[in-house]
Amino acid sequence: MLEKYIKAARRETKADLVLKNASYVDVFWGDVKKGDIAVVDEKIVGVGEYEGKEEIDCTGLVVTPGYINGHVHIESSQLSPEEFASLVVPHGTTTVIADPHEITNVCGMAGAEYIAKAAANVPLDVKVMLPSCVPATPFENAGAVLDGKDIEDNINNDYIYGLAEFMNYPGVYNADPDVVRKLEAAHNAGKMVDGHAPSLRGYDLNAYICGGISTDHECVTKEEIEEKVSKGQYVHIRHGSSTQNLGNAMYMNSHNYRRFLLCTDDRHSVTLKEQGDLDDALRKLVAMGIDPIMAVTCATLNGAEAYGLKYRGGIAPYWQADLVAVDNLKDFNVKYVIKSGKLVAKDSKPLFDTSKRYLPDNVLNTVHLNEMKPEDFVLPLRGRKALAMTILPGGVVTDKEVVEVESRDGDVVLEGTDLLKLAVVERHHYTGNIGKGLFKGYGFKGGCLGITIAHDSHNIILMGDDNECMARAANKLKEIGGGMVIAVKGGETYSLTLDIGGLMSSKDADALKDESKELLERAYSMGVKREYEAFMSLAFLSLSVIPKLKLLDTGLFDVEKFGFTDVNVD
Amino acid sequence: MLEKYIKAARRETKADLVLKNASYVDVFWGDVKKGDIAVVDEKIVGVGEYEGKEEIDCTGLVVTPGYINGHVHIESSQLSPEEFASLVVPHGTTTVIADPHEITNVCGMAGAEYIAKAAANVPLDVKVMLPSCVPATPFENAGAVLDGKDIEDNINNDYIYGLAEFMNYPGVYNADPDVVRKLEAAHNAGKMVDGHAPSLRGYDLNAYICGGISTDHECVTKEEIEEKVSKGQYVHIRHGSSTQNLGNAMYMNSHNYRRFLLCTDDRHSVTLKEQGDLDDALRKLVAMGIDPIMAVTCATLNGAEAYGLKYRGGIAPYWQADLVAVDNLKDFNVKYVIKSGKLVAKDSKPLFDTSKRYLPDNVLNTVHLNEMKPEDFVLPLRGRKALAMTILPGGVVTDKEVVEVESRDGDVVLEGTDLLKLAVVERHHYTGNIGKGLFKGYGFKGGCLGITIAHDSHNIILMGDDNECMARAANKLKEIGGGMVIAVKGGETYSLTLDIGGLMSSKDADALKDESKELLERAYSMGVKREYEAFMSLAFLSLSVIPKLKLLDTGLFDVEKFGFTDVNVD
Repeated sequence: MLEKYIKAARRETKADLVLKNASYVDVFWGDVKKGDIAVVDEKIVGVGEYEGKEEIDCTGLVVTPGYINGHVHIESSQLSPEEFASLVVPHGTTTVIADPHEITNVCGMAGAEYIAKAAANVPLDVKVMLPSCVPATPFENAGAVLDGKDIEDNINNDYIYGLAEFMNYPGVYNADPDVVRKLEAAHNAGKMVDGHAPSLRGYDLNAYICGGISTDHECVTKEEIEEKVSKGQYVHIRHGSSTQNLGNAMYMNSHNYRRFLLCTDDRHSVTLKEQGDLDDALRKLVAMGIDPIMAVTCATLNGAEAYGLKYRGGIAPYWQADLVAVDNLKDFNVKYVIKSGKLVAKDSKPLFDTSKRYLPDNVLNTVHLNEMKPEDFVLPLRGRKALAMTILPGGVVTDKEVVEVESRDGDVVLEGTDLLKLAVVERHHYTGNIGKGLFKGYGFKGGCLGITIAHDSHNIILMGDDNECMARAANKLKEIGGGMVIAVKGGETYSLTLDIGGLMSSKDADALKDESKELLERAYSMGVKREYEAFMSLAFLSLSVIPKLKLLDTGLFDVEKFGFTDVNVD
Repeated sequence: MLEKYIKAARRETKADLVLKNASYVDVFWGDVKKGDIAVVDEKIVGVGEYEGKEEIDCTGLVVTPGYINGHVHIESSQLSPEEFASLVVPHGTTTVIADPHEITNVCGMAGAEYIAKAAANVPLDVKVMLPSCVPATPFENAGAVLDGKDIEDNINNDYIYGLAEFMNYPGVYNADPDVVRKLEAAHNAGKMVDGHAPSLRGYDLNAYICGGISTDHECVTKEEIEEKVSKGQYVHIRHGSSTQNLGNAMYMNSHNYRRFLLCTDDRHSVTLKEQGDLDDALRKLVAMGIDPIMAVTCATLNGAEAYGLKYRGGIAPYWQADLVAVDNLKDFNVKYVIKSGKLVAKDSKPLFDTSKRYLPDNVLNTVHLNEMKPEDFVLPLRGRKALAMTILPGGVVTDKEVVEVESRDGDVVLEGTDLLKLAVVERHHYTGNIGKGLFKGYGFKGGCLGITIAHDSHNIILMGDDNECMARAANKLKEIGGGMVIAVKGGETYSLTLDIGGLMSSKDADALKDESKELLERAYSMGVKREYEAFMSLAFLSLSVIPKLKLLDTGLFDVEKFGFTDVNVD
């Protein structure tokens, strides 16, 4: 192997591939240099004047190392890893650190393994982190539980790169024994631990970092960023579909910037399709006034260093031949992508086939509940006042409001109000659990909306004004194996299938987009206010780590009290 | 373990040690911050307001991470690893990447193992690299040979951190099979390979780096440094006793400087004692105008990154508690040194005991030759002209000169000339090999100088004008197990013992210095010119990788021709 590289480097043999006449970003010295970039197998062997068995003319283009996405939940694309790759690789992303938190909450380790194995089919390095907090809280029922012993049993799996974002930060700084067991398992395996500690500061942050947690992708203020960087953490500049922290880059300086890297965290396929991936982050960073070399270094070398990826993120002999040729360092329009020495995308189109999906049985048919009946959704209230949930602008944080209610035949009356019933139906283990509550102000009328994406345990969330429709929606979701559904009162049932764990479609991005658009428009036509993302806003109504009032399969949950609460207000 | 850190970080329990009221260098953000630095076991657990079971008041001091020496031959101190530590730790060095090249040339793997085990007794992290080029060239006889198989057999030893400087750079770029085998052994073991390729550039350098060689401590010009950094190598700023490349720091800029680190390579105990170690480098770098934060970062975080030492080289929670408190960032006078959480030096004095030495039999009594007789040193010459060696200013590079000679009774006549006999006597395997030649202009008269330090094979080098003295000197070196000797014609024999491999003294630094001084003065009193280091200049006369004319146990060697040559000139 080495002999082959050495001989080609010295021009005794032809390289496999040469990017001719390239300008390229030298992330080590910090400038743009010129030369032919020679590649053998998956390695760069040299820059200079080279001949290759295959040559790509890069006159007028600038070559950078392949982009490294430091933290992403592939599930947020709502596509399979293969299809995700077909969206991000043509935009220059060649390595992602993936946290399969969602699918693991549904399928357990089978979910994490699925992501790794599916990704093995495509030219994208997916480093799979072992989800650290499944379920996200002990108050609800997810599809799986990964306790300290499970982490110990799985952290050494071949396909596991490290321990994923440790969201249970109070568990860390309180040195909860099971949390400590998880962290020590990772350290004993010599694997790194990603962080997630929004707003955590001071001594609690010191304690959290003492868990051996080396990154953070949640900080946003200068003070928090400086504190976390100063305490040795790498800080992500995040460019998700909704969570956008590109502004973090404004706090970089010539000394500290080696501690900053890029990530997307959650990025939907529509955003990927329409705006791109880290190439879009680079474009926007440069437009903000960030030095392009600095921006590229964050997207490449810094990510590699943060995650201990040796010989990756730079253009130099013996370094991995992950290369992106762009038009210029302002627009970052991607012309060619080389992954491990092979041309895998041209003119922002993939050159690899993703039509064959790896689809094991254990991530399919994951909606496990008994036939639901209309009477399951009866909501008896004691008096005239009840607690209703509302959504604050932004779509993730909820508020609570005491509302006047009437009841008839032992069920709350919704006609003539802007209230809807909200139900979270456990869908993993046939427990029959249903959490019920009220929601105010969504606008929807005449049926039920339902979805099997419900962070982080991914039970079924239903919102509607008709018990029969709610039962029908739940049963339809079971029938299709997960997805999104609209049951119209006295009418049809419309649905979109997310067959992989009830989270992701095995179809391609365009098919998903078309189906989504149709279902979404139907929801808006039934009154959903445009300020909401008709289905995805529902997906956060059970996320019990985000304030203030949430609904779990186990009941109504007051996040500020961190305990259950009653829908009845006396 | 983690629980203990976490609780102390959060101030629920007292830290073991607190550096109170410290200013400290934040190598991540790039400034000086203030706070108490709390330590538990060997970890920093936080900076803030802390109480400790033990406290050190650092008011008025600046704390930096412990210094990391990226490349050193401990043997060059002429002291045991224990005594070396007693010299460098009080100067702030807490980690060294050590290449036991010299002792391994004498003792084979036993030498490398000795360095590791002896260092385990002292509060200095010595990361031992496996010498890659033993012997340095195939033309001479060293005490050991480490071929590709030996490297495979030993690279996974617990005490081996990586593969040491690959000096045989033509072997790499020519893809010599045994060289490739060595390199692949290191890569297969997941261990790094240090470089050594003075002046290597262009395609040969590309090929060399394709061996997976990631550092270089030999480059000096801006062009060479930029090329090596751009090609992904880390570049050392060297501060040895003789080899001084602090000027390399002038080529650092805000982007590239993360790729620069510090080392000493070869630093004698007298230099260490009188001038210090990396603290002296820092002092001089700052005096040159280098930003002190940048200089400290090179000496700490950069070294850790270059050598993959995680959680080392910064002051942050969970990072290794290797700390140095200095008076200021200009003078770098070291007040306290904390190694792995323990106070180990104060006011530049060690607080640890080095009187107990680890001294295994297999590094002692390493002078293996039969009794030498005066007639062994007869040098018959064919005619009136011969080749003599001279030393160029600097002391390492030699030149050759054709000189007029006379012979009597089959031996060259030295009286009335400024010529001396030079002999290299094989001393490892009783081969009886003696290489003989002439040296011009050393000034010495009336006896013989001898030494068992003779780079890199460490045979015996003798220089003198009397055959009886030459034999006596060799026999004395055998008797004392190696060291330095002066045999005076018609007089006494004076010596200094380097009992460890014939390279290092098991005594302490002061004792060595006193003995050295006495022997050195005697040599000068016998005519050695003051421009030479009376003994150490001899030690390089057999280093066949440095131009131009060298003497090996196998004969006179022309480095430029890279082959043997004849002392007779016809």
